[in-house]
Amino acid sequence: MFYLIGLGLGDAADITVKGLQVVKRCSRVYLEAYTSILTVGKEALEEYYGKELILADRDLVEQGSDEILKDADVTDVAFLVVGDPFGATTHSDLVLRAVHAGIPYRVIHNASIMNAIGCCGLQLYNFGETVSLVFWTDTWKPESFYDKICKNRTAGMHTLCLLDIKVKEQSIENMMRGNKIFEPPRFMTVQQAADQLIQIIERRREEGEELGVTEDTVCVGVARLGADDQQIRTGTLRQLVSCDLGAPLHSLVVTGRLHPLEVDLLKLSTEPNAPLQLQEIDSSTWTS
Amino acid sequence: MFYLIGLGLGDAADITVKGLQVVKRCSRVYLEAYTSILTVGKEALEEYYGKELILADRDLVEQGSDEILKDADVTDVAFLVVGDPFGATTHSDLVLRAVHAGIPYRVIHNASIMNAIGCCGLQLYNFGETVSLVFWTDTWKPESFYDKICKNRTAGMHTLCLLDIKVKEQSIENMMRGNKIFEPPRFMTVQQAADQLIQIIERRREEGEELGVTEDTVCVGVARLGADDQQIRTGTLRQLVSCDLGAPLHSLVVTGRLHPLEVDLLKLSTEPNAPLQLQEIDSSTWTS
Repeated sequence: MFYLIGLGLGDAADITVKGLQVVKRCSRVYLEAYTSILTVGKEALEEYYGKELILADRDLVEQGSDEILKDADVTDVAFLVVGDPFGATTHSDLVLRAVHAGIPYRVIHNASIMNAIGCCGLQLYNFGETVSLVFWTDTWKPESFYDKICKNRTAGMHTLCLLDIKVKEQSIENMMRGNKIFEPPRFMTVQQAADQLIQIIERRREEGEELGVTEDTVCVGVARLGADDQQIRTGTLRQLVSCDLGAPLHSLVVTGRLHPLEVDLLKLSTEPNAPLQLQEIDSSTWTS
Repeated sequence: MFYLIGLGLGDAADITVKGLQVVKRCSRVYLEAYTSILTVGKEALEEYYGKELILADRDLVEQGSDEILKDADVTDVAFLVVGDPFGATTHSDLVLRAVHAGIPYRVIHNASIMNAIGCCGLQLYNFGETVSLVFWTDTWKPESFYDKICKNRTAGMHTLCLLDIKVKEQSIENMMRGNKIFEPPRFMTVQQAADQLIQIIERRREEGEELGVTEDTVCVGVARLGADDQQIRTGTLRQLVSCDLGAPLHSLVVTGRLHPLEVDLLKLSTEPNAPLQLQEIDSSTWTS
């Protein structure tokens, strides 16, 4: 059997009891290591499970699926994913390959950012399309996510923004020379995401565009969701540019129409010394 | 400390290791019993945890929060929720009451239908607003959810439809007489949900409305998601009216624009003997 097992968010003990039982009896256990991270590393998980883990980077998952699925029809193989196994497209592809190879599979679900984000106080059913923010380069500064956020907001919906993760990336120079030298991992912060959004807003304002999201839009930054030291910070986009939420992973939510209960919950995470005056927000933006 | 602990989907072993550790040391453990159910009952959970559980019905959660939170500043109290704690508005309210009473709280997340639905093959980031379908009565047949589904679909988004659960409901007669006699629990099936949608479609067609969702729209019915005997069935809305997915809980997804990878995954769950010809769908509806 091929098992896709969600590890949840936080640390080693966030796996489910069922998931842990399966991990302990598998002959091979892969740890997917490029779409998300826990607050603990491979070694801590190995000690907790009493099991050696095989790191699965993007190359292995996308090109070496035969190796991962090998003999999974006659032995138990586990593929561990931070959060829930269906957070990333490449894992769906792995399921498809298993089915086509005649290998039975099972999914052991867990919390992911997609549902745990509810803890910031915003109702999950009021979220629209999820967007991803990537690190800009000198020559590539995509903005399409901004339009999606505005579209959600116009329809009253909140937007969860997943922030870029770069692990095992090569510099263009090393890639061209075929050097297997990798850059240090990078994780986009709430500050960086807010800054990127504000750059887009300023550019579009200069062009005279009507803006669906501005520096004064209420946003929520979250860091290390589900971990003991998780941080949730509500503020305007302008306020979030200067907040430091510490170590990764970070995510950002841009709010849509706010229900009074949501406002009450968001107030719990406003900056203590410079509180966002949520009650001063035009009531048309926060009544249901 | 007041702990809100998600139980995940399925059975007793779907709690996280961390959640189980907390349950075992709490002096009082409540089981929320009206927004969702596991495939096992209170007794099975009590045996698994080695702990007595207090059933928390809607009345207790919405009006007896003082009782639930009592002494949680000096002792550990757990509140168990099927899925993740932030699936329902009333639990957010409980957090607010804890904070206002000066009681520290922690959330232990788990999978819920909101993220585990990804296992049907549809990408989570392509879901729009979530809707709820309620059991119609002779005099109350709300249709607003249909408009929300159409709005999502027009924007290319999928819609997760949560189906009604009626537990501990009184008949109007018993309510008026003050009899504490409750009707047997009812759980809306995928068949019933599909039937309700088709009634709306037929009524609106007669009125000459342009229809965003029809009997031929591709939908996915899921039952007992996360359990050993989970069922996923993809078909047109018309096909799903006659599918029997067995015991509760059921949920329904109305698809929006389908990506080719999503189509490939949906094909795994089409009816074996009367396969939905997904490849025949107008390609404009399933290219990204």
